[in-house]
Formats: sequence, C-alpha cells, structure tokens
Amino acid sequence: MNIRIEKTKNPKAKPEGALGFGHIFSDHMFIMDYSIEKGWYDPRIVPYGPLSLDPSTMVFHYGQEVFEGLKAYKAKDGRVLLFRVDENYKRINVSNERLAIPPIDNELCIEATKQLVSLDRDWIPQQDGASLYIRPFIIATDPFLGVRPSHTYKFMIICSPSGLYYEEGLEPVKIYVEDKYVRAVRGGMGFTKTGGNYAASIKAQDIAHENGYSQVLWLDGVEQKYIEEVGSMNIFFKIDGEVVTPALNGSILSGITRKSAIELCKQWGVPVSEKRISIQEVYEASQNGKLEEVFGTGTAAIISPVGELKWEDHVMKVNDGKIGEITQRIFDTITGIQTGVIEGPAGWIQEVK
Amino acid sequence: MNIRIEKTKNPKAKPEGALGFGHIFSDHMFIMDYSIEKGWYDPRIVPYGPLSLDPSTMVFHYGQEVFEGLKAYKAKDGRVLLFRVDENYKRINVSNERLAIPPIDNELCIEATKQLVSLDRDWIPQQDGASLYIRPFIIATDPFLGVRPSHTYKFMIICSPSGLYYEEGLEPVKIYVEDKYVRAVRGGMGFTKTGGNYAASIKAQDIAHENGYSQVLWLDGVEQKYIEEVGSMNIFFKIDGEVVTPALNGSILSGITRKSAIELCKQWGVPVSEKRISIQEVYEASQNGKLEEVFGTGTAAIISPVGELKWEDHVMKVNDGKIGEITQRIFDTITGIQTGVIEGPAGWIQEVK
Repeated sequence: MNIRIEKTKNPKAKPEGALGFGHIFSDHMFIMDYSIEKGWYDPRIVPYGPLSLDPSTMVFHYGQEVFEGLKAYKAKDGRVLLFRVDENYKRINVSNERLAIPPIDNELCIEATKQLVSLDRDWIPQQDGASLYIRPFIIATDPFLGVRPSHTYKFMIICSPSGLYYEEGLEPVKIYVEDKYVRAVRGGMGFTKTGGNYAASIKAQDIAHENGYSQVLWLDGVEQKYIEEVGSMNIFFKIDGEVVTPALNGSILSGITRKSAIELCKQWGVPVSEKRISIQEVYEASQNGKLEEVFGTGTAAIISPVGELKWEDHVMKVNDGKIGEITQRIFDTITGIQTGVIEGPAGWIQEVK
Repeated sequence: MNIRIEKTKNPKAKPEGALGFGHIFSDHMFIMDYSIEKGWYDPRIVPYGPLSLDPSTMVFHYGQEVFEGLKAYKAKDGRVLLFRVDENYKRINVSNERLAIPPIDNELCIEATKQLVSLDRDWIPQQDGASLYIRPFIIATDPFLGVRPSHTYKFMIICSPSGLYYEEGLEPVKIYVEDKYVRAVRGGMGFTKTGGNYAASIKAQDIAHENGYSQVLWLDGVEQKYIEEVGSMNIFFKIDGEVVTPALNGSILSGITRKSAIELCKQWGVPVSEKRISIQEVYEASQNGKLEEVFGTGTAAIISPVGELKWEDHVMKVNDGKIGEITQRIFDTITGIQTGVIEGPAGWIQEVK
C-alpha cells in the first residue's frame, strides 16, 4: 500500500529549552483506518491535528485500545536511527490478539514510521538524553454502546520530542512494593500494552508519589508474593553476582529494553536468568548483603537505577543509593547503540533515510 | 451550579422500526469539564455532536475512563421515570476513586440527567421493552503521554433510544464458563465500571459467541474456582429453594439490578444470600437436580434467564431451558416498577418533570 502524504502548510515553532516528556508534538502524524469490509486502508501522513469522534465512540467506554513506544535518535554524524522498531510492531500484534483488534502489517508500519520520522526529522532533539519519542496506537472507533469488539479502528503514529522520562535521570530512585493493589493477573491482559493496565496502576502510583516514592513494584495477582514489574518498566536484580529478572508469565510486559539487557548480559558472559522470584527472596538477599544492584528497564526511561525498596516495614538500601556497575554498563551500551556511537548486535538499528 | 442550555437548531428525525441497542442518539448531550484549578465547571446541555480531541489525549492511551448506564421510561400515563438514578451516581464516584478521577457532585448530575431527559423526552421510545438508555461517562483529557492521573477531564451524558440488549429477550441463553481468560482480580478494578474491565472481557466473549454461547461466566482471578459475574451482568442461582448470588468481593460489579433483585426477594420472604459460591457447587446442585433457576441481572438486559451452562466437559441444563418462576417474578416486578405500572419501594423511582 502506498502511503499518501499531505504536508502541513503551517509548520509549528520548534520547542526551546527543557523538553519534558510527551507533551510537545511534531508537525505530522500517520493515520490508517480499518473496517471489516476494507481491512486496514488509506494509510496517510497528514498535518498533526485533533480527531473528531462521536461521544459514543467505543474507546471512550470499553477501553479497546493498544499502544507502543519507541524512540528515534539523531547520531552525531547526522544519521537518524530507530532502535528495534520491528520488535514494537511484533508486540503490538500480540496486544491486538488479546484485545480482539485486527492485526496490522508490520512492514507497512515500519515504513510508515520511517516516512513520518523522515518528514519530521528536524523535530529530533539533539540534547544529551533527548530523543523523538514515537507513539503508535490503535483505538476502537465504532459509535456504539454494546459490548463487543469494534468493527472499525484507527491506527495512528504521533511523535513527541522529549527529554528524560524521569526527572531523576540516572539518580537512583526509591520504589514502593505494592501489597494492596494489583495491576494484572495471569489470564488477564498484563502482557499487553493496553490502556486498562495503566488505568489500573495509577492509583497506587499516585499514593507512592505522595509518600516520596518514584514508582511502584507490582507483585503477582494470585499470591501477591512474586515480583512482576515496576511502574511502566521491567525490573532486574543483581544478586550474588547473577542478574535476575522475572520470567514472562503472561501478566508482565515483554519489554524490548528488558530483552536487550538480557541479550547484552549473555553476550558479555554476565550470568543472567529469567525466573520466578519472590519479594521475600529479594529481602533475604538484602539482609545477607547479596542484593548488589536493582534497576528498571523501559523504552521511556531506558535504564532507571533503584536505590531503595520499601516492602511492608522493611527498607532495603541498594548499593549505598548509588548506580551499580552492570546497571551503568547496560545504560551506556544501550544508549551508545541508540545514538550510533557503539555498533550493536545485527538488526538492532534501522536507519531512516 | 446552573446548567446552561443550548438547544439544537437541527433536530434529527426520530428512529422508525426496530431500535436495536446503543447506536441511535438523541438531540442533546450534557458536558461538564474539570481542571485542577476550577474543579468541575461549565455544566451545559448542548446539541449532540462530535468531540474534538488531540491524538495524545490520555484516554486513548491509558484508559482512564469510567461510565454508568441507566434507563428512562415513559409510563402509560405520560410520566417520565428514572430507576434508582442516585445509585448510579454513587457508584460512578466509587469507580472514580479507584481510577484516580476527581469525584462528581451527585445532586448536580441527577439534576443534569433530569434536564437532559426532559429536553429529549420525545426520544423516549414507547414500544414494549424499549427505553431511553442513558450513558454518563468520564474521560481523561490531558494531551500528554506520561503515565499519571490526568489533570483535566470531561464528564458527559448521552442518551440512546434502545430496544432489548439481547436479541434473545426473555428466551433463556446459553452461557460458557470461562476457565482460561480472567476478567478481574481482588486488588484490581473489577468492582468499577471502567473500560479496562470490558477490554479484558471481549476476547473470551467473542470466542464464546463463535461457539454458540451468548455470554461468558467469569471465575475468580486467584483460584479460578469461584463464580464472579456473567458478561456484563451479575449472576443469580436458585438452588434447593434458595436464591444465591456471589458476594461483593472487590472484583465483581455492585450491580443496581442485582441489589434490587436481592431487596425484592427479601421483601417477598424468598430466602436469598450473597456468598462465595464455586462452579463445583453449582455443578453438584445440577447433578442432584437442585439447580432450579439461573439468571443474570444488569441495567441493559434487566433480567436474562440462563437455560444452559457449559463448564469444561459438563453441560448443565437449567429448568428444561425455560424461564423460572422467581426469574419471571423479578423481571415482571422490576420492569413494572420501571414503567410505573407497579409502585416500588420508596426512592426507587424519580420522576422527570
């Protein structure tokens, strides 16, 4: 399918000063519609602007929506680089399957992303740590109040020049282990990127913020014992020399930065395993002086070192509140690859021409 | 607060023939906005029409949304009646609390509902079983891609002249007991009316439909043993003379029709209890000839008799596939009260002047 392009006649002023995260948007957006009769149709890049939707539109009522997040960087030599974009579009189809949304064509969506980023390449910020955050998403658009999968959808891509996701940057954050609220359970939709998972999480996050914690560490929905993920990131522990992260069990997100961190550790010969791990085990490691590092991984934050965990009455300090060695190495390597300074494993980087 | 009214200059044609459910909308809608500075402000009734929203609007990405559903009936004597509207606005604030949405003023929203229905009273259908379905809902409206509670919201009420929710009407339906997918878990948001709960449910419902079942019966998310609710309804069993429904446990909806059915049974001296009940117990009752009636309750369907339950390899026929006595009595009484034929308990009906 050919992507139709309608360029803006009113380019916006580029942002000056601190960018923040996710509140400034570039000049164009990609849209594609779906109907049962036509499938996905009319892929187009058009000026960034509002959607006009009937108040009965299903997404407002039944949350049938999925999304992705990835970043474009401008290398020092001027090349524009996308990090593992194929993984994002594979994953959106995993989310689609669970949410009863028709699958998208990966190749078309990668091409759409490249054309959109190419057109808006002047929006890619070049400050240290900044990037063009790219948000593909799909919403159910039937104007209908019955509960069933929608018959029509919109797939869109929008771009936001963004700085750091967390104000703390690489400053280790304090995390609260949530033992009341639950984010997801096996058999649910925890492994997908869909609105409901985030809607379920914001109350606990809000309470954690009020108490001086940056993020919530979620426990499993069945026994409320096993570690799942942190806020909108996956979580890693270095315990007694081994890097450990919870196994993909159907209720946590299969993070692309998570996968990349695991692959890098393997390449470096650092012991790494995906397994079920309880908060009790982490606590015991902490008591025995074996909890060496803790960090979160996610597209928005990349790597976020954790300096303190609060679980019930226990406060676990990690590495004297300083970023750990392997955490720093993974961060340096992934950001190096993303910005074209380091050559990564084959296929991790796609260039936008 | 005064509700500003702007009447339509282009009234739409009223629907003719079969109404279906939830796809025709009346001439007006109610809107009220929220900001942190102003609280809820500018309550207004305006011509029904589309919303213009930035593609980054939070509701499209993080599902921060809640809703309600209630019905207006036109009595034979011309009075316009609302059924337990105060319960809906109490419940939307329960949902709001879990979803980190600021509470609404119940009295204002009841008044808004009455003024809107009064203005669009000619849209209330008078066919048997038809009503004006009223959908209050709230969506997060910040144009922002970070994960946190929105700082702005829209509360809206739209109205849809509707016929029966299920094509089957009072014909008993076949229900599939879901043992793979999970709708909600304690600590999650199962007790609220929010999009994510419905998004989580549509895949299993879709599979059930394809296999000839009307609805899915959900089991608890922890042990997958205990009965929760059916599709978008609560569920009741009559076992050995006693009416039983799952207790409110944090993961099922506190249905208003559920509450009404329980209150009616108590008033009639029919034994009724809310308790934890396993699918195994229901199966054993069925084997012993003690499973006398099964029915769902919900605003959209009111009462939906169940004629068959499929659990793993077991098919449980209920009352020879016919509607049961207490099911019929509850249906007749609630619809009688809703349409002004029977006088209900004090406070169940509010008249729209």
